[in-house]
Amino acid sequence: MEQVITADETIAAISTPPGEGAISIVRLSGLTALEVANSVFKGRDLTEVASHTINYGHIIDPDNDETVDEVMVSVMRAPKTFTREDVIEINCHGGIVATNRILQLLLGQGARLAEPGEFTKRAFLNGRIDLTQAESVMDLIRAKTDRAMQVAVNQLDGNLNHLITNLRQEILEVLAQVEVNIDYPEYDTDEMTTQLLLEKAQVVKAAIAQLLQTAGQGKVLREGLATAIVGRPNVGKSSLLNHMLHEDKAIVTDVAGTTRDTLEEYVNVRGVPLKLIDTAGIHDTDDKVEKIGVERSRAAITQADLILLVLDQSRPLTQEDRDLLAATADKKRIVILNKQDLPAQLDQQELATLVDAKDVLTTSALTSEGMTALDERIAELFFGGIENSQTTVMVSNSRQIGLLRQAQHDLDGVIDGIQAGMPIDLVQIDMTSAWDNLGQITGDAAPDELITQLFSQFCLGK
Amino acid sequence: MEQVITADETIAAISTPPGEGAISIVRLSGLTALEVANSVFKGRDLTEVASHTINYGHIIDPDNDETVDEVMVSVMRAPKTFTREDVIEINCHGGIVATNRILQLLLGQGARLAEPGEFTKRAFLNGRIDLTQAESVMDLIRAKTDRAMQVAVNQLDGNLNHLITNLRQEILEVLAQVEVNIDYPEYDTDEMTTQLLLEKAQVVKAAIAQLLQTAGQGKVLREGLATAIVGRPNVGKSSLLNHMLHEDKAIVTDVAGTTRDTLEEYVNVRGVPLKLIDTAGIHDTDDKVEKIGVERSRAAITQADLILLVLDQSRPLTQEDRDLLAATADKKRIVILNKQDLPAQLDQQELATLVDAKDVLTTSALTSEGMTALDERIAELFFGGIENSQTTVMVSNSRQIGLLRQAQHDLDGVIDGIQAGMPIDLVQIDMTSAWDNLGQITGDAAPDELITQLFSQFCLGK
Repeated sequence: MEQVITADETIAAISTPPGEGAISIVRLSGLTALEVANSVFKGRDLTEVASHTINYGHIIDPDNDETVDEVMVSVMRAPKTFTREDVIEINCHGGIVATNRILQLLLGQGARLAEPGEFTKRAFLNGRIDLTQAESVMDLIRAKTDRAMQVAVNQLDGNLNHLITNLRQEILEVLAQVEVNIDYPEYDTDEMTTQLLLEKAQVVKAAIAQLLQTAGQGKVLREGLATAIVGRPNVGKSSLLNHMLHEDKAIVTDVAGTTRDTLEEYVNVRGVPLKLIDTAGIHDTDDKVEKIGVERSRAAITQADLILLVLDQSRPLTQEDRDLLAATADKKRIVILNKQDLPAQLDQQELATLVDAKDVLTTSALTSEGMTALDERIAELFFGGIENSQTTVMVSNSRQIGLLRQAQHDLDGVIDGIQAGMPIDLVQIDMTSAWDNLGQITGDAAPDELITQLFSQFCLGK
Repeated sequence: MEQVITADETIAAISTPPGEGAISIVRLSGLTALEVANSVFKGRDLTEVASHTINYGHIIDPDNDETVDEVMVSVMRAPKTFTREDVIEINCHGGIVATNRILQLLLGQGARLAEPGEFTKRAFLNGRIDLTQAESVMDLIRAKTDRAMQVAVNQLDGNLNHLITNLRQEILEVLAQVEVNIDYPEYDTDEMTTQLLLEKAQVVKAAIAQLLQTAGQGKVLREGLATAIVGRPNVGKSSLLNHMLHEDKAIVTDVAGTTRDTLEEYVNVRGVPLKLIDTAGIHDTDDKVEKIGVERSRAAITQADLILLVLDQSRPLTQEDRDLLAATADKKRIVILNKQDLPAQLDQQELATLVDAKDVLTTSALTSEGMTALDERIAELFFGGIENSQTTVMVSNSRQIGLLRQAQHDLDGVIDGIQAGMPIDLVQIDMTSAWDNLGQITGDAAPDELITQLFSQFCLGK
């Protein structure tokens, strides 16, 4: 993969988020990037300047010599660039019209509009990064919390790639050994080969199993934990939500990259991004919040990965409470006994028959009692098994997890086959398949369609 | 103004629009910008690298050595920078969490969060640009059309500054002359001085008048022309709107810099940005559109600078049509006779008594007939007087226009005073005031509060 494959076309795109900002960047990559930029630039000759320099000047419409903007142009020559091709970044004053105009001028000079993720795709095709690193670039951009970011940065550094590449190397070595033994059967090392295959399959399978243990947490960090706050009217759901939205915990992410469409709201609890379900209702007036009853909660409960079920301990349990406890019995949940500041009326004995004591937490939204404990409980629920996510290599995306599971399945085939006394060349097929599936994770063995599909999920200009 | 005034503090801010994008920029400016950046950067020593170079590396949290992001750091040493101070731009992978984390690290290392517009303010205070250029920076970012952008770029190039500075120079020379004559009254050049003052006042006044002629168009280009499409149900307002929104004409601008607040919709008609009023209603289903009657239109008519009043020429005039014609009689308007593809039923003679023939246009939304003519008419209405906005210096903002009017008023005082035979030292006061008001436009004579207030309207990170 070390060979630089330069696509014929030079691509261009706006690489900063859409909207009015202080600086916008229009990026070019490809064989003619310098020439294309130079043809609309008044200042120093960009084809003559040193690499990795910043050059002041103006963008000029070559058709009418009109000045379009005052800019700083970064010139980065291959191969030490993001794509390993010549890269130009035009930093302009920002704004929608001027930035688009600059892009249009570049397209008029022979550049092609980049597809989503095409810069990163070229970085991959030119061997600068592997697929896990490419995926981590988008994970980093979309990270909802510091810990999620850390997992992405870790992966961007190539740690997952190294781990997978090492496992593949181990498989490859044993496969080579098998090949030798098949080619020279006279040595009669059949038993030795079988033993070697079995051992390697077990070692690699254990390594994959360890990695897959991080998958649950990894996915939560990456995608957020769908969380529903439920409870009958007037138990204190709004106060709880307000606590969770406190300070800078709430992150609103513009998912579709547009300003008008779906907005998802995330709350950062000790590094766990909770994706709040049905906040539309909760965000309305307090009156409306308290109208959310069991019926309305059912949909939220179905979608949620975590339920925060709020009960008022200053009142006896109602039928509605019992219904909600029953509806959430199979879910990961925390039952919150709120209003500790008031005298207790709730029948603890009955409650003990309905919910595990370890899932219960007492709080007072009025005095903030128990709120820290709630944050800790949520973090514990999801990071209990993992000591230090900074150094742990995690898998977080479904594609990687799916391929790891397939590889694990292949290795089971190897182990079972050997134990059942199957011929070695059949066992070899499963081992090769494991090697192949792991290769799809890093991209060393990824089919073109996969690569195309994967990069199409990227944002424009990346 | 050529002396570099470096404020003590180093400032930092995110300079790209908020949201998920391929690249985000965190910018630093000030005496310690290089040191602050260097303290969180792993790569080459930024304090040692050449100016205007791009340096690959990682941002590291110095507290725990955690890698925060893979970045490219642009190092630009004073004085050839945007602010004339040392400037650092950290290009990171983007995303909300990582970008904010980098900013927080820089603030932890002694930088201060920049106020809105503070980078540009420093560029002004350090004499790199004048106030008209500073204002044009924001105009450029907020430009709605190519022509608006062109006016801003023209002003950014310093053309308005040169013009105003030249006028001030002329005033200063005549004031010096007056001073000489007052100091040496024995020369008895009173009459000559008076004549000189009068001539200069007239010359400068004429120049200002010429500039103020561009103010109407300038303001429309800068702020958009508030436009209402009105008409009774079923005359074809939606079709007209669809035509206007056609292709890439519609620009939605996120005015407040947030994703949730006021969105204003602009339509670019031959370089005229039409700010559509009451599109909320029009954008709903066609049914709802057609429910917009006279009553609902009244508010829109009051706010609008331009009315597009649509009539159905295949029907006789109704009372509602007549009401709308009456309600818009005092406004700049274009009366559109739609449905030319159908047989005419509308009484042209009655119409002629209600509206000037020159304000009437016939169209068919079905066949697109008249749509080009409509665009031309709109452009003509607003650019009729100005041949070529690319080369014309225009004033577009209310602050500049207000100060030009005050200077004009001062010059009237000079002219009237001389003609009324007032003593020359009284006339001199008005002339000095004109000089002062013009100086406030460029910032040469601007009070601190004005400067503070002006830059506070800028966006963050600029």
